[in-house]
Amino acid sequence: MTVLLTGFAPFGGMKKNPSGEIARLFNGKEINGERIIGKELPVSYRRVREVLEKLIDEVNPSLYLGIGLAPRSTCIRIEVIALNIVYSERPDEDGVRQTDVSYIYEDGDLAYITTIPAKRIVNELRRSGIPASLSFSAGTYLCNYAFYIAAHLLKRKGNGRYGFIHIPQASEYVVSEVNTPSLPFNVLVKAIEKVLYVILGS
Amino acid sequence: MTVLLTGFAPFGGMKKNPSGEIARLFNGKEINGERIIGKELPVSYRRVREVLEKLIDEVNPSLYLGIGLAPRSTCIRIEVIALNIVYSERPDEDGVRQTDVSYIYEDGDLAYITTIPAKRIVNELRRSGIPASLSFSAGTYLCNYAFYIAAHLLKRKGNGRYGFIHIPQASEYVVSEVNTPSLPFNVLVKAIEKVLYVILGS
Amino acid sequence: MTVLLTGFAPFGGMKKNPSGEIARLFNGKEINGERIIGKELPVSYRRVREVLEKLIDEVNPSLYLGIGLAPRSTCIRIEVIALNIVYSERPDEDGVRQTDVSYIYEDGDLAYITTIPAKRIVNELRRSGIPASLSFSAGTYLCNYAFYIAAHLLKRKGNGRYGFIHIPQASEYVVSEVNTPSLPFNVLVKAIEKVLYVILGS
Amino acid sequence: MTVLLTGFAPFGGMKKNPSGEIARLFNGKEINGERIIGKELPVSYRRVREVLEKLIDEVNPSLYLGIGLAPRSTCIRIEVIALNIVYSERPDEDGVRQTDVSYIYEDGDLAYITTIPAKRIVNELRRSGIPASLSFSAGTYLCNYAFYIAAHLLKRKGNGRYGFIHIPQASEYVVSEVNTPSLPFNVLVKAIEKVLYVILGS
Repeated sequence: MTVLLTGFAPFGGMKKNPSGEIARLFNGKEINGERIIGKELPVSYRRVREVLEKLIDEVNPSLYLGIGLAPRSTCIRIEVIALNIVYSERPDEDGVRQTDVSYIYEDGDLAYITTIPAKRIVNELRRSGIPASLSFSAGTYLCNYAFYIAAHLLKRKGNGRYGFIHIPQASEYVVSEVNTPSLPFNVLVKAIEKVLYVILGS
Repeated sequence: MTVLLTGFAPFGGMKKNPSGEIARLFNGKEINGERIIGKELPVSYRRVREVLEKLIDEVNPSLYLGIGLAPRSTCIRIEVIALNIVYSERPDEDGVRQTDVSYIYEDGDLAYITTIPAKRIVNELRRSGIPASLSFSAGTYLCNYAFYIAAHLLKRKGNGRYGFIHIPQASEYVVSEVNTPSLPFNVLVKAIEKVLYVILGS
Repeated sequence: MTVLLTGFAPFGGMKKNPSGEIARLFNGKEINGERIIGKELPVSYRRVREVLEKLIDEVNPSLYLGIGLAPRSTCIRIEVIALNIVYSERPDEDGVRQTDVSYIYEDGDLAYITTIPAKRIVNELRRSGIPASLSFSAGTYLCNYAFYIAAHLLKRKGNGRYGFIHIPQASEYVVSEVNTPSLPFNVLVKAIEKVLYVILGS
Repeated sequence: MTVLLTGFAPFGGMKKNPSGEIARLFNGKEINGERIIGKELPVSYRRVREVLEKLIDEVNPSLYLGIGLAPRSTCIRIEVIALNIVYSERPDEDGVRQTDVSYIYEDGDLAYITTIPAKRIVNELRRSGIPASLSFSAGTYLCNYAFYIAAHLLKRKGNGRYGFIHIPQASEYVVSEVNTPSLPFNVLVKAIEKVLYVILGS
């Protein structure tokens, strides 16, 4: 059994993106007997779709867990809803802007609900002293885009669970941008590890 | 030589205030040969003044360092200015509200500038991966009140340095209040320890 | 043809809720030949459902437009998605808290997309100098609850459009709560009037 | 008797700055028999100082009232304290950054307190439905810089009152930046007019 764990590459001039760092850190590790494939996704609509369609086809994961950076978030957010919508005035790293409200897959449902135990994860994180909450909107930019693509493909295949986690900035990366909430990098890593343990049933 | 380190008691229904916890944690410790007296101050205009006037008179500290909770702060804030003003629509724990803009000491300067190396502290904290910044306003509620009282009394005595540090919430205390930025309690403790080492010259 | 326009009653100790005020202000008015029924909804899960089910059955509106207060919003938000989920740690005015993630209608779709011209409304408001944006999450508290109920019932009947608008606070109501963004009440009224004109085709 | 009213030019790529627009709008007007000189200041440390020193010398104003934009502010903020400190990592429009904490005038007091009736102005604005509050920190960038320079020069001359008002963005200027609080431009104008009437005693 294989877990596909993705984060994102740095974007918009930032040097490091903790979501991608964490995905790479877990790459090759095993948790509860399941092998983790950790990948850093490019911040590009076109390439995210290509990479995810290819990886999900090849790897046939029993679990997709996406990680994304929410720079203004104060806590670990467990996303409940993947929305079949892409829309943002912000360009991706290819310079593409999705300024019309569009469907990601024309034949997809308007929304999918996560199949990981979201509420239980929140409770476990809080029990460890890590701030966490449910979130019902992953936005309409690249995080939701990756989440929806994975959810749609796995649902169509009929097996494989899917979830998405937004994390705040890592304290070590924001020391000079004083208005961004953050948690230390090792706390973010611990949070994702705990999420994986809860999902994989230990 | 004695360091007077103060934090505040919990207020407004909160169970724990990390600033007071930290002050108590350092009580009796020694750093660079200086003994630390760590005190938790009541959230009361009247009692803060009484306690500080008495302590500073008795202890004759070579350094006053106040710690206060800034629940919406995302980083460690090194306060530069103590203002001779008290004003807040928020009641203290005795129910007293200071809704007129008033001086704290009629004969005091309008403002004092901290005598701890604020910029160097910020740099040292950032070097350790702890988000930090200078702040030029400690508010006009009890944090600035304690800071100004200590600065005024020490300046009048002609010896003793004075500084004030605002800290964000401790992650462990806010797990259910998801909109408050926070840092783990042990990071806050490490920050204050580092501040003390920088000031006390090691 | 009849338009059903709803806002909410004050809650949580506030004296006035601009969303309910506006709904009552438009009650009985005509816009483009359509008569407006403006109702203030109670801040109660049970009563919102009762009132809306009854009203939609009786009135058979050609348009449902809900208005809700988003106290931290800085602009008029045109909601795009109604979610079949209720979840909040905040109690309603009956003291009921929905702390389990639940469906609003067991047999409803997970999400409905608004049938009012959301993007065109945003453009028209901005052209009038009124800050506006699309929003893809109406939350999981009473605003989304009302929106989803109306969308579900109208979709099932097969006629009647549905939309929801979040408004910021009215400046006149927040003069002492200085941290809340706001727009003057007459600007909020003008915004809703403009929304109605855009939808009703003039 | 002459009133010197200043705002700032646009900066950082913005097209219009409401503070400068308002200063120009009042230029040449009379209020309570006092002639208003309204000037738009450049966003430059060097030029602000030059312009203000020259203007205050020539005009000998009975009142200096500065207006500045506080893009994240939700209300009209009446500044109480001018601080003898300049410090910001943000460059001005000449590319100058003041990254060392420095005094504005080596021989100035650390702080001056405004001599306009700040609390009464807040009350009057609120009475008109305009959100307003006292503020005890005008920052350490160009707004405080202009405020301190004027306060210092007028205090030294021994006549002329001084005050500073921070305003939020104008709604008309932020229609596409949806996260910025704002008030309509005409409300901002009305607020400044009211401030002038309160100060000039009508």
